[in-house]
Amino acid sequence: MSKSIQIFDTTLRDGTQGEKVSFSAEDKLRIAKRLDEFGIDYIEGGWPGSNPKDMAFFDKAKNHNFSHSKIVAFGSTCRAGNQPEEDPNLKALIAAETPAVSLFGKSWLLHVHEALKITPEENLELISGSIEFLKKNGKEVIYDAEHFFDGYKDNREYALKTLRAAELSGADVIVLCDTNGGTLTHEITKIVEDVSNSIDAAIGIHSHNDCELGVANAVAAIEAGAVHVQGTINGYGERCGNANLCSVIPNLQLKLGYSCIPEEQMKHLSTLSKYVSELANLIPDNKQPYVGRSAFAHKGGVHVSAVMKNEQTYEHVKPELIGNSRRVLLSELSGKSNISYKSDELGFDFDKTSKEGAEIIKELKKLENEGYQFEAAEASFELLVKQKTSKKPDFFHLEGFRVIMERNAKGESRAEATIKVRVNDQVELCAAEGNGPVNALDAALRKALCEFYPEISTVTLQDYKVRVLNGDDGTGAKVRVLIDSAQDGSSWGTVGVSENIIDASWKALSEGIIYFLMNKKSKPKHKTTIEFPLERSTA
Amino acid sequence: MSKSIQIFDTTLRDGTQGEKVSFSAEDKLRIAKRLDEFGIDYIEGGWPGSNPKDMAFFDKAKNHNFSHSKIVAFGSTCRAGNQPEEDPNLKALIAAETPAVSLFGKSWLLHVHEALKITPEENLELISGSIEFLKKNGKEVIYDAEHFFDGYKDNREYALKTLRAAELSGADVIVLCDTNGGTLTHEITKIVEDVSNSIDAAIGIHSHNDCELGVANAVAAIEAGAVHVQGTINGYGERCGNANLCSVIPNLQLKLGYSCIPEEQMKHLSTLSKYVSELANLIPDNKQPYVGRSAFAHKGGVHVSAVMKNEQTYEHVKPELIGNSRRVLLSELSGKSNISYKSDELGFDFDKTSKEGAEIIKELKKLENEGYQFEAAEASFELLVKQKTSKKPDFFHLEGFRVIMERNAKGESRAEATIKVRVNDQVELCAAEGNGPVNALDAALRKALCEFYPEISTVTLQDYKVRVLNGDDGTGAKVRVLIDSAQDGSSWGTVGVSENIIDASWKALSEGIIYFLMNKKSKPKHKTTIEFPLERSTA
Repeated sequence: MSKSIQIFDTTLRDGTQGEKVSFSAEDKLRIAKRLDEFGIDYIEGGWPGSNPKDMAFFDKAKNHNFSHSKIVAFGSTCRAGNQPEEDPNLKALIAAETPAVSLFGKSWLLHVHEALKITPEENLELISGSIEFLKKNGKEVIYDAEHFFDGYKDNREYALKTLRAAELSGADVIVLCDTNGGTLTHEITKIVEDVSNSIDAAIGIHSHNDCELGVANAVAAIEAGAVHVQGTINGYGERCGNANLCSVIPNLQLKLGYSCIPEEQMKHLSTLSKYVSELANLIPDNKQPYVGRSAFAHKGGVHVSAVMKNEQTYEHVKPELIGNSRRVLLSELSGKSNISYKSDELGFDFDKTSKEGAEIIKELKKLENEGYQFEAAEASFELLVKQKTSKKPDFFHLEGFRVIMERNAKGESRAEATIKVRVNDQVELCAAEGNGPVNALDAALRKALCEFYPEISTVTLQDYKVRVLNGDDGTGAKVRVLIDSAQDGSSWGTVGVSENIIDASWKALSEGIIYFLMNKKSKPKHKTTIEFPLERSTA
Repeated sequence: MSKSIQIFDTTLRDGTQGEKVSFSAEDKLRIAKRLDEFGIDYIEGGWPGSNPKDMAFFDKAKNHNFSHSKIVAFGSTCRAGNQPEEDPNLKALIAAETPAVSLFGKSWLLHVHEALKITPEENLELISGSIEFLKKNGKEVIYDAEHFFDGYKDNREYALKTLRAAELSGADVIVLCDTNGGTLTHEITKIVEDVSNSIDAAIGIHSHNDCELGVANAVAAIEAGAVHVQGTINGYGERCGNANLCSVIPNLQLKLGYSCIPEEQMKHLSTLSKYVSELANLIPDNKQPYVGRSAFAHKGGVHVSAVMKNEQTYEHVKPELIGNSRRVLLSELSGKSNISYKSDELGFDFDKTSKEGAEIIKELKKLENEGYQFEAAEASFELLVKQKTSKKPDFFHLEGFRVIMERNAKGESRAEATIKVRVNDQVELCAAEGNGPVNALDAALRKALCEFYPEISTVTLQDYKVRVLNGDDGTGAKVRVLIDSAQDGSSWGTVGVSENIIDASWKALSEGIIYFLMNKKSKPKHKTTIEFPLERSTA
């Protein structure tokens, strides 16, 4: 049996301290569900005492039944002078109703003197009192010793005293935090070993990446005796980020034989990484170890043939293990393996050597070059394949649309769209307003098509995302629009790319509806509305 | 005297193996000059035997007098069966006319058998023969033991034999390469210590980042006895990149007391990092340790108030040491301390307890609730504060705009905007086209304002980002637009939020221009264009 390591994810708390990282309460719940499926032990959701948005997440989380993960609320020790049961921060931790709490306290005399302005003894009492209170309230307590390594280097005896205070008060895990991220790997090893010999409680590590050693320091601490590791997906976090769990987990589990997550989940690591970056709306880092798009990219020539003969020659692990794939750059083969990987994943069976197969590959390569991505747009991918392999039905033809947006001197805005569609020999011209140009176009399209396909009224739009692909071109940049449509509990994604956001949105919107009609095998009905002579004459 | 470490930069060779990294020969020369000024010991310029562009660089480099750095040409050992003096690859190395050569050879029997298809003894002869030939030709020889760590783990004896062959033939440095990047830090330590005890030559380390341990492994090897470290600026390189010298150098020199570069150069590290990313045309990584824009950015309220009291509390080194600077971010996590720090930085005399101070905080909270984020939009923040504390000048009034976007049955699109602005008593009505509605509005606004403020033509748009805030509202969702404008090397960010993407863009675009005019203290000039009676009548 391999040794188990507790994985503690703080993407939703420390991760959101990263610049440009921000999640809605709804996003947080979606990520928590994915982390639960993936087999993360602890999910730190936020700091309920400091932020109303975090409280909204805990309210949502209460109503969800997590199968593996424990949700954790984060907060500080009691304020000096407060009784624990009267302390607003501790009360907020109880109110979050999570099974576990992570509580941070001071280990460094500098902070005790300068930030808290209390005596060293008072600080020890705050730690003990707060933990005892939380334990009395039935919480599992993860004690975060903030600035532990700096504190230890400044005054070893006092730093260890704070840990002993936490241990004696019943803390379940004691986490050594390199809060400033300035500690070097060999120091981590030495200090964690010393702590292991000084206390009996389980030890954890919380490292940051300010010296580009976040992952190394987490691994070194585990090798030195820690059994609990804190980090974030993709290493998001304040300043240079936290220890990146997407590297820590495979290093520990695939290379060192520790048990971190259920073995069968490891192949979902790459998808998890992408999912979180999508919701954070941050561009995934191609160079990211293990899960990045370039992590197993090989150039043509000797490397490729060597890899084909024996992958060990140029790959440190098999990419499939973490759900990534090998890419062969500057080669016809790369496209084929990519696409067959993708279509296999989406559950399509088509012959890659057939004429249609070759055409799909060609078209996909062209689209990917233009900035399309089909990972979150299975419906667009399926439409593309259907178009090439079978007859995609013609549900409607766009005769044209026009979107107008006006703003006046008083700052009042108005957006309006007109659209003309043809279904067989019948034409419908509709106008609609919206709170923005895309919303107006969406409304006009639905209004026009409902005349022929009333079932469209049951389709809802679940999500609309915009990503600028090449920001340096300013407002002339290309954008990718991702849309999730839903009906009756099932949902599907479509994608559009253009320099014109309305064109990109049009493609994603219209494909969302075509996909729905195709799956319903819809047939158009004759319009029942009265037609005005003028409108007909424009057909 | 602190121990000297040789710094070997391979940005121009291994760095260009990174996906999307590519330099012209002229770019390479510019970077080499900067690396020389910075005090890098060795600059590997390319592989003259494999690539004509690399040869063009060596031709240029010959004519430049480097004051500190040695230029290095890279190549492989002699091909099996060739005499060294007849081997095209070795001849190209001589032809490059560099003082030093880095020569790679095989250490791993797997490669000897499967890639070279020769006997282990023949491989040793290739190593010896090639090095002897280069030494006879007066070269300093840096021997790169490719796949050394994998080879060592597979067959320690043979791996060490290859090093001894190199040593006996006169190699000046023997570099242990973790070519696949799969070696863990504690393995590096153990193996480098063993090698140190087995050979007398100077030892170097060449690490990759596939386990996110590239920097840790370089540092560990130095601590274990190596005296030469190879890496790239910003960690560019094949797959997940090489050891990042922008982190390795400060870790070694500022934290461990080794001497890597002249002390007075350290403060140019951040600029060097940006310079190379500019020439590579890659977006700088804000999260990059030491040199990134966010490396000393503080977001949490607790952190900010502590940093203001004593910077050591949340900063592992002083940002000035590497030419970076502290930044305070504003967000929903921010408390009063962030706001007052920010306004201090921007030069506002800001009393949190004053009437204006309270109003600013109230307004900020309101805007943040609506989805505004000011962390990347300092200019919008400054405009907000100015509005409350002093008279913000009126540069222009919007009388109205209209944006039209049309698509016809052939799928052709057209976007056009008209705008009417008033400056004092003069009105300008302009129309412009764009490749999308926002681009058209941007063009029309600039065209109209250039009539009064010609200096606007020097402002460029650097970045345009869109984020959907509440995706579940579909196309009716709120969006946040972030714009970076720039002029003459300085840049500033503005933000707009609306359910209407054009309104949100309008706010960010117009504030970007107002901020510029305010800083320039611009005064409007009278229009010089001929005015048509009809246009005037609309005023």
